[in-house]
Formats: sequence, structure tokens, C-alpha cells
Amino acid sequence: MNDASSDLIDRLRAAVPEARVLTEPDDLQTYGKDWTRQFEPRPLAIILPRDTGQVQAIVNFANENKVALVPSGGRTGLSAGAVAANGELVVAFDLMNNISDFSASDRTVKCQAGVITEQLQQFAADQGLYYPVDFASAGSSQLGGNLSTNAGGIKVIRYGMSRDWVAGLTVVTGKGEILELNRDLVKNNTGYDLRHLFIGAEGTLGFITEATMRLTRPPENLQVLVLGLADLTNTMDVLQAYQQKLDLTAYEFFSHQAMGHVLAHGDTPAPFETEAPYYALLEFEATSEAVMETAMALFEECVEKGWVLDGVVSQNETQARKLWQLRERISESIAPRTPYKNDISVVVSRVPLFLSEIDAVVREHYPDFEIIWFGHIGDGNLHLNILKPETMDKTEFFSRCATVNQWVFDIVARHGGSISAEHGVGMTKKPYLRFTRSETEISYLRAIKQVFDPNGIINPGKLFDPE
Amino acid sequence: MNDASSDLIDRLRAAVPEARVLTEPDDLQTYGKDWTRQFEPRPLAIILPRDTGQVQAIVNFANENKVALVPSGGRTGLSAGAVAANGELVVAFDLMNNISDFSASDRTVKCQAGVITEQLQQFAADQGLYYPVDFASAGSSQLGGNLSTNAGGIKVIRYGMSRDWVAGLTVVTGKGEILELNRDLVKNNTGYDLRHLFIGAEGTLGFITEATMRLTRPPENLQVLVLGLADLTNTMDVLQAYQQKLDLTAYEFFSHQAMGHVLAHGDTPAPFETEAPYYALLEFEATSEAVMETAMALFEECVEKGWVLDGVVSQNETQARKLWQLRERISESIAPRTPYKNDISVVVSRVPLFLSEIDAVVREHYPDFEIIWFGHIGDGNLHLNILKPETMDKTEFFSRCATVNQWVFDIVARHGGSISAEHGVGMTKKPYLRFTRSETEISYLRAIKQVFDPNGIINPGKLFDPE
Repeated sequence: MNDASSDLIDRLRAAVPEARVLTEPDDLQTYGKDWTRQFEPRPLAIILPRDTGQVQAIVNFANENKVALVPSGGRTGLSAGAVAANGELVVAFDLMNNISDFSASDRTVKCQAGVITEQLQQFAADQGLYYPVDFASAGSSQLGGNLSTNAGGIKVIRYGMSRDWVAGLTVVTGKGEILELNRDLVKNNTGYDLRHLFIGAEGTLGFITEATMRLTRPPENLQVLVLGLADLTNTMDVLQAYQQKLDLTAYEFFSHQAMGHVLAHGDTPAPFETEAPYYALLEFEATSEAVMETAMALFEECVEKGWVLDGVVSQNETQARKLWQLRERISESIAPRTPYKNDISVVVSRVPLFLSEIDAVVREHYPDFEIIWFGHIGDGNLHLNILKPETMDKTEFFSRCATVNQWVFDIVARHGGSISAEHGVGMTKKPYLRFTRSETEISYLRAIKQVFDPNGIINPGKLFDPE
Repeated sequence: MNDASSDLIDRLRAAVPEARVLTEPDDLQTYGKDWTRQFEPRPLAIILPRDTGQVQAIVNFANENKVALVPSGGRTGLSAGAVAANGELVVAFDLMNNISDFSASDRTVKCQAGVITEQLQQFAADQGLYYPVDFASAGSSQLGGNLSTNAGGIKVIRYGMSRDWVAGLTVVTGKGEILELNRDLVKNNTGYDLRHLFIGAEGTLGFITEATMRLTRPPENLQVLVLGLADLTNTMDVLQAYQQKLDLTAYEFFSHQAMGHVLAHGDTPAPFETEAPYYALLEFEATSEAVMETAMALFEECVEKGWVLDGVVSQNETQARKLWQLRERISESIAPRTPYKNDISVVVSRVPLFLSEIDAVVREHYPDFEIIWFGHIGDGNLHLNILKPETMDKTEFFSRCATVNQWVFDIVARHGGSISAEHGVGMTKKPYLRFTRSETEISYLRAIKQVFDPNGIINPGKLFDPE
């Protein structure tokens, strides 16, 4: 560290004496990155505030000293939205993990930004309630990060995105002003809803420091069904048939190849003997015998129509968990193969055509690549994973994947889809933003950024480059 | 009309030849106002575009000629958000009422801004689906207006606000730029969600010209329960007891006085003989025998605890409709008494205290005023109606109500509530915005307005005054 940096950090400590400041190389490595590995972390220092007031003091310091700030939650991001690669000061929320002000009649609870997703889920369960946003990184992701990326996950089809569970927000804008947004109200039509502007902004307008979250009643008697599908288009036929008669809590999808990796990984048995090119996993609340009968009648109907080749329904909770593993363990089982990940979406009805077009393009140009498809097909969200051939060099693989990206995003754009369904834009998807948002739209995004962060000190270079 | 105006209108006709222009005094009266009667309509003219391109041409014309524009939907607004009192050009959406692009697998449909709420509800029903946003003015309110005010209504507790049903929007900004927002995707995390900025903006950022709306499966076997409550706080006890075990589709509330007006209005019988100070109306889907049994067991429990004095459950659809009339006909039955309306909200748990404080203040200072309480208590939204004493002059009555307003909003602010839960701010609530949004927040609202409408031509003077 040079003298100027060292002096700056001394003044930072003096400006926010109650916050913790870290400068050890290990800490800089740890707090300077997320789950992406594309950028080398190089933060100035790490600061851990304990409350909203300290966050405000940090932002004021940053404005006065023209220091760029990067927010850091559980660092489980997949788009490098929380990576400090350019000497930024990292503001980490680990010391702000308080849960308070639970109200049983409002079914709300106040969380500081550093509350871990699982901590909130557990708190809800302890009150006989349920926080329904769930995904693989629930054990380490923090609420502030979830909200800044509007995290989705495996229950979106029934419960929506993180956005849908926010009753109120406390934020510190890039100008250093504290705003209390929406006052935790269910109904409040008094001008532009700034809450929804901060949710999904990837920390580029300011910091979310506290959130009042809504909880709901826990689901009852969840049943899991895994179906082997004859053809890709049958995913939609089956979805539509079930949705007309049941409220699904999940509708997931994976290819035979994807399941193959999970089975090879061990410990998870195949759902049935029949081989199918694609599989769907359905979950619903079996609140009565009648619901189970409806589900079974629909199954018969889908088999008769030739959409479904075989299927299995969970007989108990253990089996339900085993069936979920077929879907949930895919990422883990392919991790050793250095997968190149894309997180794309289209409107649900376009999924089959969209998927086959991308599949065809990638297979044609890269016959040596193994492609693994899975995703939240009930909401049009597909995870495209390209596995590195064992013999191929990592650099060559990623550079060839970048070429693939261009084609994939061309197809995304042609189908009016999104280049980032739930992972956000950060730095890795920044070059592709224009495939989903028009240049005119992006000019408005920039102007809004300017309103909240005129000095450009809050997470600069994420979402779009500074002008 | 003077020569300058007449010349301006000629040039407008030339600039947008495909749109219809109205200048007759009757039309100016009709299109220049909403359901409020506080401001005298005085529009320059009325223009009725047929598509988004024509709306863009109108905005361009307005920017070039510095003409203020006022959007006009079904004109059922209750906050004068769509009133043209200052020589504005009214842009009315009556000719843009096309419904298209229905997708069964996506459960979405595209609507032009002028589609009537009931038209969309009927369209959904024809497809075996359901559009759940519903309120008294569904027969004449237009979708563009619903979205611009984020309309709520009687099913919010289960289905949310209008905001929650928007898959995508086409808007023309105040700068005359067309934006396609969100591409109808379920999942799309690619930067600030401008869709949510336009929803509830009361047409001050630009015009919503088209919206892709989500539909859902229709509710099954709806049952209605009307309960007589011993005390105000019991509204919350009962709500909590039921919500723990059932998904309610509605939880409404009205006072004995409110019901008295409906009964006197004729045609609707009392729900039971027992008199109670307050009543709650609950609705839920009785999807199985077990659900009905749960509902009945909860009723017994509420009676035993002394919360509920008496109750009735609908035996068939006709009776369910009759029970709903007890709540739905309140507005109509008090209309002849020139009610002064307030639409306020707090978090649900504060409702009893909040309500008694306001009730006490109004009763103390205005013992000659009759106060009628009703509302969507399940989401903290209360309608406070003060009835004009028969002998009191209208002007005196409204001026005294304005004094009441100040006290009411002081109490709203103290409880962290909203001065407009679902009606919006428009002109009538504009002086009170600061009771719900801080001055700092309002400065950001103004800055955002500046981004989308730098010349201040789009619905000026609504929400806040031009600077």
C-alpha cells in the first residue's frame, strides 16, 4: 500500500470510528470478489459498518474524497456485481445481521442488509411462517445482495421474485441521503415507488441497509412429481395441463445429460427405469385427497397424449428430497468440468423453440462441447451450461465460449428475451446489456444513476460503464 | 376559443391527422374531469389517438409547442389526477381499446391503454382464466388509468395491486421516446425496472399506451362469511386466526353505521339479527370439505374467545352476492349525503389504534358530522367518509373537512401511514404528500420527473407543483 492509500484509510477510520476496517491481503482477496472468477480482486480496503448511520458516513467520506465504493453481501453473485477490481473501498455488511420488529399480524420482519437468506428462512419457520425465496446459495447469500439482484430461485412460479416480498426499504443514496421507502405498507399510492428502483439496481444507486420483509404461511404437504418427457415441446403441454387445475409451487426442467451427471455423482437414484430426453419436476401442495386425485388424473392424461413417458410421485418427505436432488445437484455435479454459465429467459411459450435454436447452433459449431440444460422452465428461465472438454485449455475454452455468447444473445434478442434472468448484469453481462435493453432505455438508466449518484462513486462500472 | 388556440388546434390536426380531435363545449366538460368535482374543467381540446405512434406524435407536438398534456382514461379517478383545469390538451384513450396476442401458455394478453377493466375481466373469463383486480368502477375505468394509479380494490389481500399483474409496458416518455419495458418476461434482471416507475406515476412521466397483463386461474367455490365483531381490535384477532389456516381472497370491514345506510337503501337484508358495532366480511376458496370444516372451527373459536358475536356463511352464490352487497353498496348508499372521502392506510397491526384515534378526534370536534368507516382492512386500507349534515351548506362543509384533513393526516404521519392508499395523489392530495414522503424523497421524485419530462409538459401540477 502506498502512502496516499494509507493516509486515506487513516482518515476513513477517523471519519467512521465505529466501523471495522480490514486491510490484510487475505481479507482483500476474500471481500474483493464474488463467485465469479473472471476479475482479479484489488480493493483499497474493506469497511464493515454496523448501522445505517455508519453507511451514510462512509458514503459522505467517499463523496468528499472521490473514493469508489463496492457493496459486498454474501459474495455469491454470478455476474461480478460485487467485485472490487479497481482499488475500490468494499462496504461489507457482515456486521449488520440483525433481525427485529417481527409483527405477527402484519407478517413482517425487519432485517439488516447482512442477514443471511437461511437465517431469515429459519426465523420465519420459528414463528410458524415461511420466507419463500430459496436458492442454492441460501446458506451464505445476504438479503441486501438478494434484493440488489432481485434474486429468484426455485419457487418463483408460485411466490415470485425477491422484489415481491419487500414491504419497505431503508437506503443510503449515492448522495449520502437516507430514504425510508414505502413505510412497510401494503397499499401506498403516493408517487413513484423508489423501492422498486433500488431492488435489482445491483447497488449502483446507493446501499440498501435495511428491509422489512413479508412472510407467509408455510406450504402444506408438498408433493413432488418427476416426469420423463417425450419431447421438448411437451414441457409446455404438461405445464399448461397442470396449471389449469393446480397451483404449482415449482416447475423445473433438466435434460437427460444433466441428470446423467447427478447420477454419476452418486447417492441419488434415477427416478424410474424409462429413459427420456427431458425431465420435468413438479411440486404442489396436496391440501386434500381431491388435489392428489387431480394430479394423478392429469398424469394419466399426459401419458395418454404421449407427452409423458413415465413418472414417479414422492411417497414421503425423504423421497421428495431425493427427487429434488435430481435437479438441485446438477450445478454441483458439473462444477469439476469448469462450466461456462448463461442465465437466460424468454416468455414461457417460446421456451421450446428458443432452446432448440440455441442447442442447434452450439452443437453445430462446437460438436466437442457438452451442453447441459436445466432451469426454472415454469417461468421461462433456462440455465445453459457448456462443459469444458477435458483436454481443452481453460483460456481457449473461455475465449471460444465468448464467441458462443454472441450467437446465444443474438437468439435471445430475436426472441425478445433477457440476457440475465436472475443473476444480474454486473461486469460479466455488461457488454451484452443492449441485447435486452434498447439504447434509449439505457440512456434513461444512466440518467437515473446520475440522479442518485452524481459523483459516480457507488459501484461504478457495474451494469454500464461510466460515461 | 381565441385565434391562437384555434391556430394551435389546426396545427395539431395537421401533425396527427389520424387522431380524432374534439373541441365542442360538451366534450371539453366530459373529458376534462374525473369523478372528483373540486376543479372546473377547462381543457384546450381533446385528442383521441389510435396507436402508440400517434401518442408519440402528440408528445412531440406538445414539446415543440409547449402545450401541457393530460392523460384521460375512464375518468373514474378520485384525486383529480386526470383533470384538465388549466387549458391543457387532453389525450383520451377511448379509441385504443384493442385486446390482442393472448397466449394460453404464458397466460398473458396485450391490451391497449383504453381497454375497460371489465372488458379485460370478461376476456379472461372467456379463456377460462381470471383477471383478479376488481373494484366498483370496473365497468368504466380503463387499464391505462388503473396502471397509472396502481389501482387496488377488493382482492388485494390475495392478488395484490394492479402493479403485480403487469408483464410488460409500452410507454411514450415526456421526451417523446417509445420504450418497451420488460418484454413480458417473468424473470429479467437487467438493470433498473422502469416498468415499476411508470406504474403509479399518475401519467406524470409519460403515457402508458399498451400493457401485457397476466391472467390466472379462476377461484373455485368462493365462500363468503360475514361476522359481527364485539370490538374494533377483534378485526385483527379474527384476521390473524383465519390467515394462519386459510388463504383469504378478501377481508373487508364496515361499521354498523355504514351497514345502516345500505339496509335503509333497501333490497339488501341484514346478515343476522344480532347487532354488532363492526362487521368483517371474509372470502375464501372452499376447495374441499376440509377447508369448510377449518373455516367453521375457526368461527367457533372466534365466538368462544368473545371476538365474534354472530356470523353467517353463504349457502349459495346468490347469498354470497347478497352478503357482498353489504360492503359494496356502501358508497352508493351514502352518495346522496355528499361524503367527504379519505383513502388512508397504515400497517395492518396499527389499524385498530389508528382508527380509534381518528374517530375520537373527528367526533370531538365535529359532533354534528356522521362518520362512516369501511375499507380493505386486511391490507390496512381504510376509507373514512364524512357525511354532510343535511342542513349544512356545501361550501362550509368542505371547508370544515379541509380542517379535519390536517388532523387526520397528522395521525396518519404519526402512525407512518399513507395519505393515499389506492386513489393516488393527483391534485386533491398534492398538498399532503409530505405527510407520507419526506422532503428528500420528494426531491428525488422531482429529479426523476425531470429525466423523463424535461419540458414539464406531461400532466403538470399533478403529484407536485412544477418548480
